[in-house]
Amino acid sequence: MNLIDQLNWRYATKRMNGAKVPQEKVDRILEAIRLAPTSFGLQPFKVIVVEDISLREKIFNEACHQPQMKEGSHVLVFAANKKVSAEQIDDYMQLIAATREISVDSLSGFRASFDGIVAGIAEKNYAWTARQAYIAFGVGIAAAAMEEVDATPMEGFSVEALDKVLGLTEQNLSAVTILALGYRDEANDRLAKAAKVRKSKETLLEFR
Amino acid sequence: MNLIDQLNWRYATKRMNGAKVPQEKVDRILEAIRLAPTSFGLQPFKVIVVEDISLREKIFNEACHQPQMKEGSHVLVFAANKKVSAEQIDDYMQLIAATREISVDSLSGFRASFDGIVAGIAEKNYAWTARQAYIAFGVGIAAAAMEEVDATPMEGFSVEALDKVLGLTEQNLSAVTILALGYRDEANDRLAKAAKVRKSKETLLEFR
Repeated sequence: MNLIDQLNWRYATKRMNGAKVPQEKVDRILEAIRLAPTSFGLQPFKVIVVEDISLREKIFNEACHQPQMKEGSHVLVFAANKKVSAEQIDDYMQLIAATREISVDSLSGFRASFDGIVAGIAEKNYAWTARQAYIAFGVGIAAAAMEEVDATPMEGFSVEALDKVLGLTEQNLSAVTILALGYRDEANDRLAKAAKVRKSKETLLEFR
Repeated sequence: MNLIDQLNWRYATKRMNGAKVPQEKVDRILEAIRLAPTSFGLQPFKVIVVEDISLREKIFNEACHQPQMKEGSHVLVFAANKKVSAEQIDDYMQLIAATREISVDSLSGFRASFDGIVAGIAEKNYAWTARQAYIAFGVGIAAAAMEEVDATPMEGFSVEALDKVLGLTEQNLSAVTILALGYRDEANDRLAKAAKVRKSKETLLEFR
């Protein structure tokens, strides 16, 4: 399967038909998200996978009034860390040490490179953690296309309401973006057959 | 070719061997970036593709002192719009109308949805345009992996210096992230054989 063909096949599906995405496909999309690179490898975010229809209805009513929330079968909420803490960095050092079978002490130089981030202001931290979540979001979009699963990126929601419904604030998280997974309803989605609109190579790219 | 396998194969290559990535592979990676979705489809960014070695050396010396800048063969600089202008939205409406063979007038409702963005404060605009560039960045990373091209995401650079070297400020752009393309130098890259460190599914994901 060819990524370019799949990216041409995909589109921001506005109406979905309620069919359930098979678990093995969801799992592969989530695995791609898990493998996505992030700055320093820190992965300063979490992905909340919402399948339960009553919870999706609650989100629809209170935070994100878009039909894919109910017509899809799974909704992935990308939530970034509001603040990067020293504990989080310590956990990450433990994870590296365990994975690579090295001592935590041998990572002291790498550990020090996080000092500025941990000491940094929360606002700036969050701008950075949000960007890391977006890398995984982009990889997840590509993965869904490869699985022939329709995926709608959705930024139009109330962050405050969604954080509340999912209890994200207590976890030092805040929702940054959503990916709804499901299958297109071609009869009712006027965009299903619309030509894809993209800037030309000449406009988007500059060769130097 | 399987995306999961390819994401496991890739890593943040620290040393590259100078071999040139074939043009057709670069073209396919750039096409994937061009096809990446963005909020409203606006694509509020540009990708500067730097192949010229003297320009890469200048960037190395003045903005991003990392070996991949010279040891790779192409460097993609993702630069987001500092401010979204009314002219840019108008251009986009023209592009949609031309692509879908409809009138610009028929897009007036959609056009109105941009009013808040254009009127919004520049800081917030830029946080949003940067995130859009990161979606394309994530898709580009997946595309490079599918092409078996090594790609190093690089955020460690002086934004100010890079904007200056590439003349981005005059274009209403500012660099947000870099993707260096090339081939790993396994003999000199101590990370070439290191186990990939990622959070477990249980840590990164939450199923609801």
